[in-house]
Amino acid sequence: MTFDQWTRQVLDRVESALDHYLPAADVLPAPLHDAMRYAVMGGGKRVRPLLCHAAGELTNATPEALDAAACALEMIHVYSLVHDDMPCMDDDDMRRGKPTVHVKYDEPTALLVGDALQSQAFVTLTSEVLGAQHQASLVRELALASGSIGMAGGQAIDLASVGHSLTREQLETMHRLKTGALLRAAVRMGALAGETPSAQSLAALDKYAAAVGLAFQVVDDILDVTADSATLGKTAGKDAKDGKPTYVSIIGLDASRALAQQLRADAHAALEPFGARAQRLAELADLVVNRVS
Amino acid sequence: MTFDQWTRQVLDRVESALDHYLPAADVLPAPLHDAMRYAVMGGGKRVRPLLCHAAGELTNATPEALDAAACALEMIHVYSLVHDDMPCMDDDDMRRGKPTVHVKYDEPTALLVGDALQSQAFVTLTSEVLGAQHQASLVRELALASGSIGMAGGQAIDLASVGHSLTREQLETMHRLKTGALLRAAVRMGALAGETPSAQSLAALDKYAAAVGLAFQVVDDILDVTADSATLGKTAGKDAKDGKPTYVSIIGLDASRALAQQLRADAHAALEPFGARAQRLAELADLVVNRVS
Repeated sequence: MTFDQWTRQVLDRVESALDHYLPAADVLPAPLHDAMRYAVMGGGKRVRPLLCHAAGELTNATPEALDAAACALEMIHVYSLVHDDMPCMDDDDMRRGKPTVHVKYDEPTALLVGDALQSQAFVTLTSEVLGAQHQASLVRELALASGSIGMAGGQAIDLASVGHSLTREQLETMHRLKTGALLRAAVRMGALAGETPSAQSLAALDKYAAAVGLAFQVVDDILDVTADSATLGKTAGKDAKDGKPTYVSIIGLDASRALAQQLRADAHAALEPFGARAQRLAELADLVVNRVS
Repeated sequence: MTFDQWTRQVLDRVESALDHYLPAADVLPAPLHDAMRYAVMGGGKRVRPLLCHAAGELTNATPEALDAAACALEMIHVYSLVHDDMPCMDDDDMRRGKPTVHVKYDEPTALLVGDALQSQAFVTLTSEVLGAQHQASLVRELALASGSIGMAGGQAIDLASVGHSLTREQLETMHRLKTGALLRAAVRMGALAGETPSAQSLAALDKYAAAVGLAFQVVDDILDVTADSATLGKTAGKDAKDGKPTYVSIIGLDASRALAQQLRADAHAALEPFGARAQRLAELADLVVNRVS
């Protein structure tokens, strides 16, 4: 199977699974469920679900178990986008090529959509396709990665940094929490959804995830200045306009491009112990670095 | 032990456990952790933790297991208060006798405090004092009770109802989700944290929780018109001013008081199968109905 075929197959599975794990749009309260579906369905690159499925190949996780983990990860990711886009945060009107939730609906709905998607992620992780042991360990991974020492904490540091100049180290800490923690969880949860991985394997996956997570952010910063809004599906040039420190603003465009390639090489190196079974993870590192949107 | 002594003992335990399960105020990002602690510590009636501990007496749950469940419940409850108080929702300045989080800090902080408290609840439920089976079942109870078919869903219905006249049935549906679902989860989680309860026991506890949950709301509506802000620790008369339908506005003050007493009797009746072991639950039903704040 080519990488494109594999990707398409996983994305199809995940889209069906999201449809399954989200309450139907006619379940009470219908307007909230409609808005949750608007936020989640039919959009985004689904990077976390892809990483989760790819990592699951290392431990023979079942596709059904990986679907549940992948959907929970995507629900958390989407809730964070919905809240980040709100007027009191980044105040963004466009996301994934569509009006953001608070624009399409209203602010209270956006707040509740995010809150309810976070809960739904944990409902999803405790569904019967996973045994109790898997449920417990995946919930812990996801909760730690989402909370104050993970994604939400990174967002707090990000907000506090607007208009301040950060060192490259401070910028890295912020991104390690804000986007890195959930990408790392995607990789770990995929592996943990199957046969118990060794501590050594998890350490190698952490190295891979750290490189990919940082690469993801460096490329985001590059695209913010080089791509247009239509291609990105969100407002281009937003970080520069908002005075947010980025890799491009701190080390420049050329050094940022070189850094992304270096991180890609680091990610590949971390996968060496796994041999051919890590092919999809290696290809995903390439995808993250070479993407144009 | 008198009920007062029991209550004081549980509240002391829960306060220490909350201190333990929340990240320390000097852990990075310190400002976020400081704000999370401001929202959670040293305030509130801790009704859900008390219900959880009382229900745990029916199934011999360990105090440590109940502390974890109680803290998770309180974190979810507090996150909902922090988000509900935000300007785009109820826009309230005062809560538990202190400035609300968005007043004391700012709106983005309030948003992130709520988000991170929800995650922290699930971190707490997956700590080692609980086995994997307990972790999994408690996470599912709490996630379902918090999400779109529970608390967040009730909040969505509440917002949609402002300025509209509701029937008593519609009001009941709204409260069954908005406050009832989490109170029910508190009772069920307490019982589920010990030896597996029978389906019959859980059904009896559901009946008890339904009566107590509704009573809680009826009394809230009574206090909103009869108590002052200083006693309540939040703005009195807010519901009437906001045009929110309440029991008092729909059936009047006297009928509301009679209803609260009827629900108290229903709660006691539901506990009959448990005999003396349900003493604390019975006393808590009295507390909920007879409270003055």
